[in-house]
Amino acid sequence: MGNLAASLKNVGKKEDKRYEEDPDNAWNCCSWCEYLLIVILSTILLVGVLILTLFWVMFYRGGFAWSESPAHQFNLHPILMVAGFITLSGFSILIYRLCRCMKHIYVKLIHMFFHAVAIPCVALGFLSVFDSHNALQKPSFYSLHSWLGFVTMGMFVLQFVIGFFSFLVMLCCENKTYSCRAAMVPVHASLGLANFWLAVATAVTGLIEKERETAKDETLSSENRLIEHYITSAIGITLVLIGIIVTFAVRRSNAPASAKVYVTERI
Amino acid sequence: MGNLAASLKNVGKKEDKRYEEDPDNAWNCCSWCEYLLIVILSTILLVGVLILTLFWVMFYRGGFAWSESPAHQFNLHPILMVAGFITLSGFSILIYRLCRCMKHIYVKLIHMFFHAVAIPCVALGFLSVFDSHNALQKPSFYSLHSWLGFVTMGMFVLQFVIGFFSFLVMLCCENKTYSCRAAMVPVHASLGLANFWLAVATAVTGLIEKERETAKDETLSSENRLIEHYITSAIGITLVLIGIIVTFAVRRSNAPASAKVYVTERI
Repeated sequence: MGNLAASLKNVGKKEDKRYEEDPDNAWNCCSWCEYLLIVILSTILLVGVLILTLFWVMFYRGGFAWSESPAHQFNLHPILMVAGFITLSGFSILIYRLCRCMKHIYVKLIHMFFHAVAIPCVALGFLSVFDSHNALQKPSFYSLHSWLGFVTMGMFVLQFVIGFFSFLVMLCCENKTYSCRAAMVPVHASLGLANFWLAVATAVTGLIEKERETAKDETLSSENRLIEHYITSAIGITLVLIGIIVTFAVRRSNAPASAKVYVTERI
Repeated sequence: MGNLAASLKNVGKKEDKRYEEDPDNAWNCCSWCEYLLIVILSTILLVGVLILTLFWVMFYRGGFAWSESPAHQFNLHPILMVAGFITLSGFSILIYRLCRCMKHIYVKLIHMFFHAVAIPCVALGFLSVFDSHNALQKPSFYSLHSWLGFVTMGMFVLQFVIGFFSFLVMLCCENKTYSCRAAMVPVHASLGLANFWLAVATAVTGLIEKERETAKDETLSSENRLIEHYITSAIGITLVLIGIIVTFAVRRSNAPASAKVYVTERI
């Protein structure tokens, strides 16, 4: 009967309940183990893919340069895009869903900060490949990779602008914009996840393009080509594993499935 | 007060409420428009990508054959994989989330049926490329595409077996297995979505590999190579759009965000 009374009280106080802990949503040992496993595994993978890309570019593609060496300028593209679209965006998404130790507004700000840091990475990554292709007189915006990249960048900017206005600027009139913000949550979340997978798909197409180019490069020894093939494949597999773990981490509700949850719990 | 009484009644009758309509979850005109838009757009894209692939294979890759012509046997691979992993799986996922007009057990059975039909497509698609590569003495299981394909097939089988046992076989002791089935729902749903995107990523890597091969093929006219490039790119873009629309369709709750929902509503 205590539960029923609490439930009645909750119905009346729906608005006040928003940022509070749901007493039904108690975590058991298994939930905590899963939580820790996801945090550790995703950190390893997100940092790992960046290190692997850096290793590949530094030791097998000749390192970095800017416009003085267009071939090496290109090398900034994979590393900056992986940093912006995968590592930073991945952490941003995971922090938003997994961080349970601070006020929700701070979590939002960290989520925005990570995405904001990703913007210069992506912009520089785009410039580096554009400049390099221009200098080497290669066609730009021709391959499937470039088209997918365009869609990914467009959706990223759209999501950033929508998220910034809907969930931060609109907070200035908190009560009046409540239903609008609430309606935007599932849209922002689903498009964000789709955008992340789009980035993964774009990255693997880029890797395959580069790998095919390397495979035909007669100036490299066959041993080096084989090692590069394994490195790029490992990066591709890691990217896909990151996609799986992020989808799993953000999709799975931590509430026991028999509990009632407030959809408005986190807006 | 009527609402509160109804809410009280609902708490007591949680089990009975499972398959019933939630009175708070009323759809407005906008929800119906979005619903129709998603149904129409996803049908066009899911059927469109199959037709586009068929068109490409029939008119630009020389049509189909089995072991009598290994080069044409390969052509079965893209069409069967797109049919199994994208069109059938995509419809299966969307039907499960969007079908609101029949009993939930029938929706489950249709969901399983579509995935079951996808299995022979995938198996034949795998066999055709394996046979073709053997006959042409090309290395199998070497490229990133093949590795991603392995992960996709493994996860597909795992999901099918888990889904079949958790949500159909376990129904034989409905009450005893309730909490177990409830716990499996978010796992099955998130891994299913990840698997769908994995299939999209694998398909685009395969397209890029084929496109790079075609671009180097001196036996084709440059005009034909350009048309093929545009067709494969269009298939790639369509695949990614399908990924976005499916993520959007299954992620977005149709309940107004201010309403309480039962997580157990659909198990």
